[in-house]
Amino acid sequence: MSLIEALKWRYATKKMNGEKVSQDKVDQILAAAHLAPTSSGLQPFKIIVVTNPELKEKIKAVAYGQSQITDSSHLLIFAAWENYTEENIRNVFAHGNRERGMPEDSHSDYVNNLVATYTAKTPEENFNHAAKQAYIGFGVALAEAALLKVDATPMEGFNPAALDELLGLKEKGLRTTTLLPLGYRDESGDWLVNLKKVRTPLEDFIIEFK
Amino acid sequence: MSLIEALKWRYATKKMNGEKVSQDKVDQILAAAHLAPTSSGLQPFKIIVVTNPELKEKIKAVAYGQSQITDSSHLLIFAAWENYTEENIRNVFAHGNRERGMPEDSHSDYVNNLVATYTAKTPEENFNHAAKQAYIGFGVALAEAALLKVDATPMEGFNPAALDELLGLKEKGLRTTTLLPLGYRDESGDWLVNLKKVRTPLEDFIIEFK
Repeated sequence: MSLIEALKWRYATKKMNGEKVSQDKVDQILAAAHLAPTSSGLQPFKIIVVTNPELKEKIKAVAYGQSQITDSSHLLIFAAWENYTEENIRNVFAHGNRERGMPEDSHSDYVNNLVATYTAKTPEENFNHAAKQAYIGFGVALAEAALLKVDATPMEGFNPAALDELLGLKEKGLRTTTLLPLGYRDESGDWLVNLKKVRTPLEDFIIEFK
Repeated sequence: MSLIEALKWRYATKKMNGEKVSQDKVDQILAAAHLAPTSSGLQPFKIIVVTNPELKEKIKAVAYGQSQITDSSHLLIFAAWENYTEENIRNVFAHGNRERGMPEDSHSDYVNNLVATYTAKTPEENFNHAAKQAYIGFGVALAEAALLKVDATPMEGFNPAALDELLGLKEKGLRTTTLLPLGYRDESGDWLVNLKKVRTPLEDFIIEFK
């Protein structure tokens, strides 16, 4: 199946049937998000994988009771750095240099410049920027799920402060951005499954300068 | 090629060779972004496709002289709504209802609620939210390009106000978010092509609650 066919097949599943997604498929979805590009390669986000039923119930309670959270097999939570710090930035490049067998101080001008740029911004500006990087990985994860015929529901509707608290993210320097329950559609109970997929007319979506 | 293999193959191409990407492949990359999900299906962004050489030169000048802008075949510019307005929101749902053969006032409670929610926020909050939706499409476009073995360079490094001005985006209610030049790598002139792809260790990227 091509990615375009997969994207036509997928939809924001409203009702899931509780069937388990194989670990192999979950791993591929996580691997795709892990490979997604981010600004300066900083990967300023993590993915939290929740399978614990009691925790899913608590998360549903701060996410408008959306049933996919508990009917999903695995709930992915994308959480971005609450700020860019000098330590985080330097750690990423130190790891990269080690992996590439390069001297520890490689790219030091570039890194110093990044540190200066980010630390001059407000935490809120930095979180917003980090969250955008998480959305790239979120898009790539969605794409991989669709290719594997795993249903997924992209969600922004939840109380982020309550969810951060529930997951202890403050201590990890993270804030939640989006949820992605993974599972399989329950066609009999899903009002959206048979509605035509609608997008902005392509001619309005594209602007050409030839 | 699987998406994971494609994501391993791709990299932020630093030097492109000027070879043209076929219209068919460009269309598939645009189609993938067009199919990407967005919050409430509002698709609050557009893609600007630049092939005009003079305009590419002008864009390069406000994007730190990055050579991929002029050496690319097609330059994609992702631009998000500068704000959510009542008109924009109602237009999207009116179109959706027509496409689905539903009465014009379908989902009116939902739409009224969306209008009330977004119009209560500041333009900057709304632009940030719209930009995040554009990043989902950006991630999906990147994925499709890699699957088609088309090189692409995700870019945030440019002067957004200058680029908005150059493209007349203010009049269209849009602001630029990211650039994605499409083309083919020039291996002989690219310092990054042979460096190992590095990502955060997977065990640090994933947090599990079992």
